[in-house]
Amino acid sequence: MSRKIQIYNTLTRKKEEFKPIVKNHVGMYVCGPTVYGDPHLGHARPGITFDVIFRYLKHADYSVRYVRNITDAGHLENDADEGEGKIDKKARLEQLEPMEIVQFYTLSYHKAMEKLNCLSPSIEPRATGHIIEQIEMVKKILDNGFAYEINGSVYLDVNKYNEKYPYGILSGRNLEDTLEGTRELDGQSEKKSSVDFAIWKSASPEHIMRWPSPWGDGFPGWHMECSAMSEKYLGKTFDIHGGGMDLVFPHHEAEIAQSNACNNCSPVNYWMHNNMITVDGKKMGKSLGNFINLEEFFTGKHEKLDQSYSPMTIRFFILQAHYRSTVDFSNEALKAAEKGFTKLMNAMETLGKISASENSTFDVNDLEQKCYSAMDDDFNTPILIAHLFDGVRIINSVKDGKESLNSSSLEKLKTLFNTFVTDILGFISAKESSGDDLTNEVMELVLQLRGNAKKNKDFDTADLIREELEKAGIQIKDSREGSSWEVK
Amino acid sequence: MSRKIQIYNTLTRKKEEFKPIVKNHVGMYVCGPTVYGDPHLGHARPGITFDVIFRYLKHADYSVRYVRNITDAGHLENDADEGEGKIDKKARLEQLEPMEIVQFYTLSYHKAMEKLNCLSPSIEPRATGHIIEQIEMVKKILDNGFAYEINGSVYLDVNKYNEKYPYGILSGRNLEDTLEGTRELDGQSEKKSSVDFAIWKSASPEHIMRWPSPWGDGFPGWHMECSAMSEKYLGKTFDIHGGGMDLVFPHHEAEIAQSNACNNCSPVNYWMHNNMITVDGKKMGKSLGNFINLEEFFTGKHEKLDQSYSPMTIRFFILQAHYRSTVDFSNEALKAAEKGFTKLMNAMETLGKISASENSTFDVNDLEQKCYSAMDDDFNTPILIAHLFDGVRIINSVKDGKESLNSSSLEKLKTLFNTFVTDILGFISAKESSGDDLTNEVMELVLQLRGNAKKNKDFDTADLIREELEKAGIQIKDSREGSSWEVK
Repeated sequence: MSRKIQIYNTLTRKKEEFKPIVKNHVGMYVCGPTVYGDPHLGHARPGITFDVIFRYLKHADYSVRYVRNITDAGHLENDADEGEGKIDKKARLEQLEPMEIVQFYTLSYHKAMEKLNCLSPSIEPRATGHIIEQIEMVKKILDNGFAYEINGSVYLDVNKYNEKYPYGILSGRNLEDTLEGTRELDGQSEKKSSVDFAIWKSASPEHIMRWPSPWGDGFPGWHMECSAMSEKYLGKTFDIHGGGMDLVFPHHEAEIAQSNACNNCSPVNYWMHNNMITVDGKKMGKSLGNFINLEEFFTGKHEKLDQSYSPMTIRFFILQAHYRSTVDFSNEALKAAEKGFTKLMNAMETLGKISASENSTFDVNDLEQKCYSAMDDDFNTPILIAHLFDGVRIINSVKDGKESLNSSSLEKLKTLFNTFVTDILGFISAKESSGDDLTNEVMELVLQLRGNAKKNKDFDTADLIREELEKAGIQIKDSREGSSWEVK
Repeated sequence: MSRKIQIYNTLTRKKEEFKPIVKNHVGMYVCGPTVYGDPHLGHARPGITFDVIFRYLKHADYSVRYVRNITDAGHLENDADEGEGKIDKKARLEQLEPMEIVQFYTLSYHKAMEKLNCLSPSIEPRATGHIIEQIEMVKKILDNGFAYEINGSVYLDVNKYNEKYPYGILSGRNLEDTLEGTRELDGQSEKKSSVDFAIWKSASPEHIMRWPSPWGDGFPGWHMECSAMSEKYLGKTFDIHGGGMDLVFPHHEAEIAQSNACNNCSPVNYWMHNNMITVDGKKMGKSLGNFINLEEFFTGKHEKLDQSYSPMTIRFFILQAHYRSTVDFSNEALKAAEKGFTKLMNAMETLGKISASENSTFDVNDLEQKCYSAMDDDFNTPILIAHLFDGVRIINSVKDGKESLNSSSLEKLKTLFNTFVTDILGFISAKESSGDDLTNEVMELVLQLRGNAKKNKDFDTADLIREELEKAGIQIKDSREGSSWEVK
């Protein structure tokens, strides 16, 4: 199957048909976390967005090399090339070696991504693992005349660069705008111009993470790692680069400049950016008291949360919006998502139990076509989910005897749900994600005991079962096909 | 609490009292996996051994920095500095980028260690993340006159080194023995002497993993990474270095030589080595058909296995032997371990349910003293486990009314079991490791239903429950305190 997939390209500001550089292969680079704090919604959204894109491209028979980096050095407290390194600072505050911070938060990031059922990327390179590659790139940029060294730091000369390449091409900012925004720093900096950015920084004596270089001890500028690592693993020009919209400027703009300045070619064919999230209508921020990390969502332990929300509720909620729309987290919205998700997964379970009729009253082929069209249209997951709910309606109607499916349609619908719900959207039911077949087996027994009790008119026992299960958060549902259970 | 811990030091071939370099702090480095294949028993044993040592040192109030590396470059097919890189070869065979191999097997190693309930080390550095540090060390060794460069490779000059430092000090091999073993290579090699080893290797054109260096494109010799990374994170001399006994020569011998040659000081105060494992009395080997990886043990899917063995059975079995003894895996031995482990964990559950009497017939302080003495004596886990089984006997006798514990003894015994079984040996019950409170809650209901059925002389229902649970691998045990269940 060779699908025609449309991708909205931030670079051209329009949807374009996706054409890979190498037939049947996709190289995709996504900006990963700076590992100095607990994983939060700002990690969940790109994680889930590009996971679904990764899954869909694989489903479309592409061989995908998905590279997502771990930033474990170079990311400073502010974007003006000043201030302490984020990881250095955390290490100083906690009296740990920076790499202990990196280890701890890399593991918690992995754990969170696993709970959200995001597949591991093919390669997860680290900034500290590619210092040599970054130094080599800085050398080339210097050789090509697009950078200058001063006091052991190397800066990309944006004015010089802009004479040959359009700086601001991705973000749509021109050089004057950028200068306007940064002018207040003039005179306080060693840079020739406030728009210049560090590609190598001299390390002050207290900076722990440092490496020898031709310009003395230092560390790479934050933007360098992605240029060096994407080139190493995907080539000088590759297919897709993803990340959050907040990275468009300066980070991704800087990546384009670095690649042009080094290799005289643009690094990426399709730039994709997920939009931002807000919490109760406000930007998430530690000072605003609405900074909720993922573990707090999963456990419900945060004063802003009415209850816990499972990783699948978070995943469902994020995918209910298109990745280019903003998403606002609130208890109300998450509770609605929880309901919707449960409805979808229950229908999937029902689908496994309903039986085929002679005739079909529903066109599954048409539904399938709509599902693919939604995903082919810039990975439009909310439209896909809406179509899947048409399927849910049919499944429940067939169960109630109001509609019917013949055996080939029924098989097709099962395949469709497995493909889109499980493989592409990456949803797993609460039962599966509890990871326990044992519960399933014991619950089968309990349902059997309840059935026997009812048959024997032993209503005390039947009631006891229902009550105790409710205490455990399990709800029993009776239908013509028998009883089933779900975790509330 | 400042315990006196005796450690068997491979370097001195005797037990010595452990004295840390910095008061209350321990630096421990353990050789981790070369990530090019599925995790197997050869990973499980050092993983579990040093996990228990890590846990015990922390329990003894040391602040421990535990560094375990990931070898993702430099490890060649054979020890004579010839042949393809292990990861390069796997990448070539599977037509993948080497870092895709590294990512895949690093994640499966982490997953296996997590199942075995091994705590994450404080830092998990990678060879590819420390190429600069390795190059710097090679430079110093060259400057100090203990190495020579030829055709872009750098070799440690063992004869020269041996004039100043005793080469073979750890393994007890003298230079003549070593020469004897390697002589057949003479004349085929660019090395001055067959005992010399590469600290930097020139990369042949087909070698994928390569970095620029003062000696041309190449990659570090395998032994270099541990010297460079242990120095970076633990200092030029640190407390404990661990690994499997197969690493004593040449790997650890080379580490000592590299550190002496670079820093003129011995890197490690206490060298600790776990002994080897065999399967059915034979060395484990792919050609022998007895190579069973950990996932195969956990699922039972290997022709040599009668059944599956849980991660905790494997952990218990390994800790039932002292780390310096060999361990032979067989179905019989593992089944016995499974029984022993279940007995231990059942006793722990019983301990939570028995009630205190007026008087004690058993001296818990004495048992506690014995448990600590076992661990203080070179981490003697089999002796510790034997003492814990004295505790098991008492717990079961108290349950049966044949012995008694007063309330303070009972509390002490609970603390002792929590400390040694859970915190130090790192055992978790099958119920906990299934990770599911839901099963516990549903099982409570099932036991209640069974109790009611028996009371009402409804033996059909009682039998049905027992039979269905047995099919699910759950066994019910009845006692005076009521019924309990366990996963077989």
